[in-house]
Amino acid sequence: MDQLLRVQNFTISSDGVAAREDQSLERPFGSDIDPRKLFAWAGATASWSLRTEPGGSRGLDDYFIRDFGHGIGAEIMGRNKFGPQRGPWSDHEWRGWWGDEPPFHTPVFVLTHHERPSFTLSDTTFHFVDGDPATVLAQAREAAHGKDVRLGGGVSTIREFLDADLVDTLHVAVAPVKLGAGLRLWDSPDELLDRFHMEVVPSPSGVAHHLFWRK
Amino acid sequence: MDQLLRVQNFTISSDGVAAREDQSLERPFGSDIDPRKLFAWAGATASWSLRTEPGGSRGLDDYFIRDFGHGIGAEIMGRNKFGPQRGPWSDHEWRGWWGDEPPFHTPVFVLTHHERPSFTLSDTTFHFVDGDPATVLAQAREAAHGKDVRLGGGVSTIREFLDADLVDTLHVAVAPVKLGAGLRLWDSPDELLDRFHMEVVPSPSGVAHHLFWRK
Repeated sequence: MDQLLRVQNFTISSDGVAAREDQSLERPFGSDIDPRKLFAWAGATASWSLRTEPGGSRGLDDYFIRDFGHGIGAEIMGRNKFGPQRGPWSDHEWRGWWGDEPPFHTPVFVLTHHERPSFTLSDTTFHFVDGDPATVLAQAREAAHGKDVRLGGGVSTIREFLDADLVDTLHVAVAPVKLGAGLRLWDSPDELLDRFHMEVVPSPSGVAHHLFWRK
Repeated sequence: MDQLLRVQNFTISSDGVAAREDQSLERPFGSDIDPRKLFAWAGATASWSLRTEPGGSRGLDDYFIRDFGHGIGAEIMGRNKFGPQRGPWSDHEWRGWWGDEPPFHTPVFVLTHHERPSFTLSDTTFHFVDGDPATVLAQAREAAHGKDVRLGGGVSTIREFLDADLVDTLHVAVAPVKLGAGLRLWDSPDELLDRFHMEVVPSPSGVAHHLFWRK
């Protein structure tokens, strides 16, 4: 069985935007994006990792949420998914947005041109790596011990790995929200049709799940 | 986290039929039902356990197929899912339809009024149990070590556990095939709406995935 590189549950607006450019510690997706709105479809499911109360839906959206860690042995993410800092790492106390128990439960490879020592929070270990996509993917595959690798985003990272033709499957959740300016995954999902099969599955929650796999 | 009792990938015709009454060793679903036709949606996916060649789709249907064993620690099945025999077990050489490597990978509890010793094939152990649904579910939950229990079918077994109000979620795949007479799961899925939420998700393969979870 191959080790796939998979994008999962990556959520964008109906006009293709995942975040604004003006990310900050308080606003991981940019000044005027409320992640609770963009990720409402995920937050309503029974399997959502941040759920604090019992209940939640167990319909279609829940399948995508509970598949998040299934068969995944490592994640690759861009620096801006990890945090809002730019340039050399000055504050080693900042250890990501996710608190003491990040939802990854595997090694995570953070792309950065600036050195930083690895550290572990609960069962997630963050490594900071500088390399071209193929090299970093090889590192992540080795760490995944035969399992698949998740490509966590953001937009620039996904586009970089798509340009290198390293992505095997993508699940992009298109939320019923329009955002206008920002970091855009695509102008249209049809841009991927030369290399990928596509299924678009509308969910009762209002999200349209876009599923791609290699031709 | 509760241990759910889940029906998964249970496939029926558009008129609600899962099998005919005249099951035989050669025809597990009855004399004129071709399982390759009924399960075409599953067989086309990349994750289908009986797939012998590479390839296969990684769209919506594949999510359901690869979720089959995810988080499951035991299965309960009716005797007729296990085999076509009726009455006392006369041939202990017959050990199910699935060959030396059954696709369950957990303990399986087969409902029967006739005693038979447990046996193991690869990582699946079959136990033969006589008891009311609540008692058998308690046995399966214990064997599942905190994971969920799958209710494997057939129709009579699912209906029996529904009548006892023990089923937490159901995924029923309604195939674009009409079968007429036979063992029928329902006249209409609306019969479950008093106790369950329902989502109906049409797949590009032609199957309509029916997802139910408790209100």
